[in-house]
Amino acid sequence: MPTIHDLDTPSILIDAARAEANIARAQAHANKNGLKLRPHIKTHKLPYWAKKQVAAGAVGITCQKIGEAEVMADAGLADIFLPYNILGRAKLERLLALHRRVTLSVTADSLETLEGLAATFTDAGHRLPVLVECDTGMGRCGVQTAGEAVALARRIDKAGGLAFGGLMTYPAVGRAAEAEAWLADARQALAASGLACERISSGGTPDMWRSSDASVVTEYRPGTYIYLDRYQVAKGVGTLDDCALTVLSTVVSHPTPTRAILDAGSKALSSDTLGLADFGELLGVSGARVTGLSEEHGTVTLSGDGKLRIGERVRVVPDHCCVVTNLFNEVNLIDGDKVLETLPVAARGRTG
Amino acid sequence: MPTIHDLDTPSILIDAARAEANIARAQAHANKNGLKLRPHIKTHKLPYWAKKQVAAGAVGITCQKIGEAEVMADAGLADIFLPYNILGRAKLERLLALHRRVTLSVTADSLETLEGLAATFTDAGHRLPVLVECDTGMGRCGVQTAGEAVALARRIDKAGGLAFGGLMTYPAVGRAAEAEAWLADARQALAASGLACERISSGGTPDMWRSSDASVVTEYRPGTYIYLDRYQVAKGVGTLDDCALTVLSTVVSHPTPTRAILDAGSKALSSDTLGLADFGELLGVSGARVTGLSEEHGTVTLSGDGKLRIGERVRVVPDHCCVVTNLFNEVNLIDGDKVLETLPVAARGRTG
Repeated sequence: MPTIHDLDTPSILIDAARAEANIARAQAHANKNGLKLRPHIKTHKLPYWAKKQVAAGAVGITCQKIGEAEVMADAGLADIFLPYNILGRAKLERLLALHRRVTLSVTADSLETLEGLAATFTDAGHRLPVLVECDTGMGRCGVQTAGEAVALARRIDKAGGLAFGGLMTYPAVGRAAEAEAWLADARQALAASGLACERISSGGTPDMWRSSDASVVTEYRPGTYIYLDRYQVAKGVGTLDDCALTVLSTVVSHPTPTRAILDAGSKALSSDTLGLADFGELLGVSGARVTGLSEEHGTVTLSGDGKLRIGERVRVVPDHCCVVTNLFNEVNLIDGDKVLETLPVAARGRTG
Repeated sequence: MPTIHDLDTPSILIDAARAEANIARAQAHANKNGLKLRPHIKTHKLPYWAKKQVAAGAVGITCQKIGEAEVMADAGLADIFLPYNILGRAKLERLLALHRRVTLSVTADSLETLEGLAATFTDAGHRLPVLVECDTGMGRCGVQTAGEAVALARRIDKAGGLAFGGLMTYPAVGRAAEAEAWLADARQALAASGLACERISSGGTPDMWRSSDASVVTEYRPGTYIYLDRYQVAKGVGTLDDCALTVLSTVVSHPTPTRAILDAGSKALSSDTLGLADFGELLGVSGARVTGLSEEHGTVTLSGDGKLRIGERVRVVPDHCCVVTNLFNEVNLIDGDKVLETLPVAARGRTG
């Protein structure tokens, strides 16, 4: 069996046992709180893990792009939620084809999106569930008021081939209570209009752990929880020892006593820090942070006792693991130093 | 012939005439200043453009990864410079294989890197030129003093299968004069040691235009000049009308009068701003900037007269075009609205 010493650098390592433990922990939390889990596959982009998540008890998966959903459907995933406004004939045709082979649901936050869906999905015997996306504080997509949510829900309800599927939000991190109040109001407004709202879907790994069975949320879409990263550790979701994804890298230069250069730059670690200081940290090298990136170079500043030598291999915990996954063609599942399996990142680069 | 209206979004559009004009302009500048041009293919990652660059007069190309060089060698590019410390048996073996089929040169900035090269390249009849990388102010790789440069050059000169190839730097942007002085000193120190330094290679698109025939630099490795981007425009290299690469995107949501959401997020535009405010700007939409990104959403703030409507397609000029190229599997060469050709990004994702 190959070991990580046989791998080229930079490479992604996934500690399989840690990922499995992270899956189990989230599923147990969801079960305890009567919450349906619908993991977002953006983090791993692998049928391998999507299947494990469903086997552990998830009701289905979440994809953000039709291309990702197609990969997952091809791999046998049967229940897919696509919380995105799908617009344009080409994408709508692909969505219709998906609807014919998996249990599909989508979202909309405007009449324009609904018109396209209503014109494409016309089979009253096989309606497409459409949830209304709500902006509960994130400031991204979503209707701004409960009144708008009701108006769109009515429009969905009237469309021959669509079914009102509930409410969906991606809450601002740390503002779950605000989202909760928003959604409760909207549910009440829907009820007053005679529309039942059986599914309320929320997302974001950090706030999942705050949800309880008193919540109006019925379904949760965590993504990062499977691998975790520096951002999640900063949010208190776990420790560095829970992080399943690391980037194996080689020290290629050591120009000054406090500066070393890795062969992992922004093309391997990404420039997405999610607001953290630094771009990553080195496991087992005290005080070693990636303080600068160019495309093929990671600048490590040594501010503690840790030492590095040229040619040495190190493992970097990135700030945001989801975007790292999208930069590599394959990942290596490991157990200690053993490489269990090398998997192509099947849903990588599905931009459309 | 297909048009851009037939393309899925997000997609990369390359205005072919602009790219050709950018190639011609840089080559003319290099010719006028007696400078050899050796374009960095990281920006386009396409044999198509590498061949055009060589046809226009470039002496060869620059690649940052062996995987990129292999793609280019396969496509027939014959002279490749790899300004990177290559370490480890697997990469050294691949480097040796490359040396047997193209005119190759590399760099080193440490004895450790040189030991590996010297042990791998042993054919005195077919020496590998090794340039010494110098840190002339960038604070990345490179020897710190002229004395160190001389010591490494001597070591190269003594190795049976290596040849001292000169000096290489990637200067800090805007500090070309400092780099120039550093390199002049080092060249003098080499001469005092009896080592001729016939090749001095520098890089970076913005400062290329400041180089003149009075420079000690003999070769230049610009990358971004072929496409240009918001960063280069900010540096005065060209105008938005010179930018060849744009990201075609669809407005998928318009939750408030001043906020619209694109289907191009960090997976399409990247989070790499190179220090600019905002992540991109929309062509032809006055006051429309991409002010926020998540993976699949780009948040546009409308601060001027420009209006957008849901379903509309827009073209975004990104901050840093090189990293955008690496996020897409293919690019579309266009002439106005016509799609001339769709090319796979052959050297995309070559991390190793």
